[in-house]
Amino acid sequence: MKKIAVLGSTGSIGTQTLDVISRYPEDFEVVGLAAGNNAALLLEQARQFKPKWVSVGNEALADRLRSELPTDVKVLHGEEGLIEIAGGSGADYVVCALVGSLGLKSTLAAIEAGADIGLANKESLVTAGHLVTEKARQRGVSILPVDSEHSAIFQCLNGENMKTVKRLMITASGGSFRHLDRAQLLDVTVEDALKHPNWSMGAKITIDSATMVNKGLEVIEAHWLFGLAYDRIDVVLHPESIVHSMVEFVDTSVMAQLGNPDMRVPIQYALTYPERKASPASPLDLLKQGTLHFSPMDFDRYPCIRLAYEAGRAGGTSPTVFSAANEIAVARFLQGEISFLAIEAIIEKVLSRHTVVAAPSLEAILETDAWARLEASAMQ
Amino acid sequence: MKKIAVLGSTGSIGTQTLDVISRYPEDFEVVGLAAGNNAALLLEQARQFKPKWVSVGNEALADRLRSELPTDVKVLHGEEGLIEIAGGSGADYVVCALVGSLGLKSTLAAIEAGADIGLANKESLVTAGHLVTEKARQRGVSILPVDSEHSAIFQCLNGENMKTVKRLMITASGGSFRHLDRAQLLDVTVEDALKHPNWSMGAKITIDSATMVNKGLEVIEAHWLFGLAYDRIDVVLHPESIVHSMVEFVDTSVMAQLGNPDMRVPIQYALTYPERKASPASPLDLLKQGTLHFSPMDFDRYPCIRLAYEAGRAGGTSPTVFSAANEIAVARFLQGEISFLAIEAIIEKVLSRHTVVAAPSLEAILETDAWARLEASAMQ
Repeated sequence: MKKIAVLGSTGSIGTQTLDVISRYPEDFEVVGLAAGNNAALLLEQARQFKPKWVSVGNEALADRLRSELPTDVKVLHGEEGLIEIAGGSGADYVVCALVGSLGLKSTLAAIEAGADIGLANKESLVTAGHLVTEKARQRGVSILPVDSEHSAIFQCLNGENMKTVKRLMITASGGSFRHLDRAQLLDVTVEDALKHPNWSMGAKITIDSATMVNKGLEVIEAHWLFGLAYDRIDVVLHPESIVHSMVEFVDTSVMAQLGNPDMRVPIQYALTYPERKASPASPLDLLKQGTLHFSPMDFDRYPCIRLAYEAGRAGGTSPTVFSAANEIAVARFLQGEISFLAIEAIIEKVLSRHTVVAAPSLEAILETDAWARLEASAMQ
Repeated sequence: MKKIAVLGSTGSIGTQTLDVISRYPEDFEVVGLAAGNNAALLLEQARQFKPKWVSVGNEALADRLRSELPTDVKVLHGEEGLIEIAGGSGADYVVCALVGSLGLKSTLAAIEAGADIGLANKESLVTAGHLVTEKARQRGVSILPVDSEHSAIFQCLNGENMKTVKRLMITASGGSFRHLDRAQLLDVTVEDALKHPNWSMGAKITIDSATMVNKGLEVIEAHWLFGLAYDRIDVVLHPESIVHSMVEFVDTSVMAQLGNPDMRVPIQYALTYPERKASPASPLDLLKQGTLHFSPMDFDRYPCIRLAYEAGRAGGTSPTVFSAANEIAVARFLQGEISFLAIEAIIEKVLSRHTVVAAPSLEAILETDAWARLEASAMQ
């Protein structure tokens, strides 16, 4: 039985993780749950899964939860609460489903404690891939990808020798505005941007999908997760989101993983690996689907993917700037403060003002992160 | 270093096998070569690969070869020659690339001798799947598929637990007449039938591809190779022949193997498994390909696939009848004796006249084979 802590339990990935866990009570015990401000849902989850550790966004919410839960449940709050649950709740498996750079410290704490990681938080590897992978190696912990693309690649690599991999092909749907050209992007609304054609996901990742920032983060994440140079990681446009990603080997064989877009499948694979178990997801009907399309990435239509490769290749603190500037820009777009196209403009401008620090320490990363946020917040 | 014998070395699979072997002289030593009537090519191959054992179709050709080769090369002939090379040449790996039911006895001899098998001869498993798989289990030898579809499935199963397989999806291009309806098939010519749109193969298998008999044989072969019931083996029309086959797992994940149609890739995989090595095949350009189509098998358009499932489910000597009747019918079609549509009519009629023997012995299989050939030869 795996002892599991879920960080970000009330979000899209978190709730789906608990959905998967609830189907296999004999395999999983939830020992910790951490969330932000959705105390009502967190309370409901705590009552259902009975973890001994719970953490919530702030002290007031923690007090409320404490009054509602049995006295033997430790109720923590804030960033310290997250880190405590990641590293101190006795979990041997931590699902890190926090959105944004908040996930880094807790991912590191979980690895330090020797827990295997189900990683849905892209920023942990994007901003600190060298620290996270090195610590995981030292502590002998596995990082299992939860993202559908990285899970697909991970599945394609099952039983294979990494030395025989020629390149990865990460598929991209093109997001909610894929049928619009750049001129048509000038006055798109937040509401339009949130309508992803294939996947039901959180707000930030849906916007990141429309800007292709999400794919850029995935490229950088894949670089660290699979240890491949950027010129061996390609992005392919595939509007149907049926082929979740592919791996080409030296013998020209290409392995692909396919399925309906349902995050419970990669989440479950990360939890049950190396086994597979029955899933409530609906089976793929390829005959009904009929046709699968593939076309080259358009770096002019999607400048953020170009910026991501540039930031990845520059290395050091560059991906941190890319990710943090984007996080602020997306938040500002969602608040109606800036236009859709201003997101890419802000990322590019903040990157251009940054002086890269190579092989940064955690402190240098956090400093850069704070600096990039400040820059992106102030930018018009 | 693997000691290899190639049975059927001058055919399409045989020559491509030697092409692969010639690229890795440090990994493979050819100890035996067996062919039919193409003594000139066999001589050339024997001079290049220097096997100690050679076998050819008949005594006259054997005499000719003997006079041309060094005296320490044993030159055999006929069916005994094939069997001797399969089981007595000291090979630890035998590529069985014979076309038709000729392959069965030599496959069994190779397994008896403890050699692993690179199996391109479908009929070994189609006619005697229960004997071949049981003997392989007893002797602890591996049967590695050379067919592109079975190789694809084998690659999809790499690192997986067979218990978590839900079903196989074998892809079928539809063959050279896929754009014709049944009325248009009435007066197609041999020449037309031999023009396969995707694969360059031998004559028999190209006709078998147009009738869908080839896919039927593959379904029966897959049944034995992967130990799955027929209702868990589906055939999917996929005109591009890029996805070579797929496996669906219980978690709804579908793994697929893709590549350009080039038999050297599955041949090489069967030889180098579990490793992959560089291949001279051209890499798949999915972006140039652009679109992949999938549609349901049409059992009315292709009655031979229905007959194959029926023969497979009936079991016993039924698949032997299906395969042997087809072999004769195709030979008669190639000689201009019968029409294209007479192939399926003959198979169906011979099957209907047959009384199935369950779990047949090798003798019963060979008797049935001879009976079905006689029936199919006489039928108008």
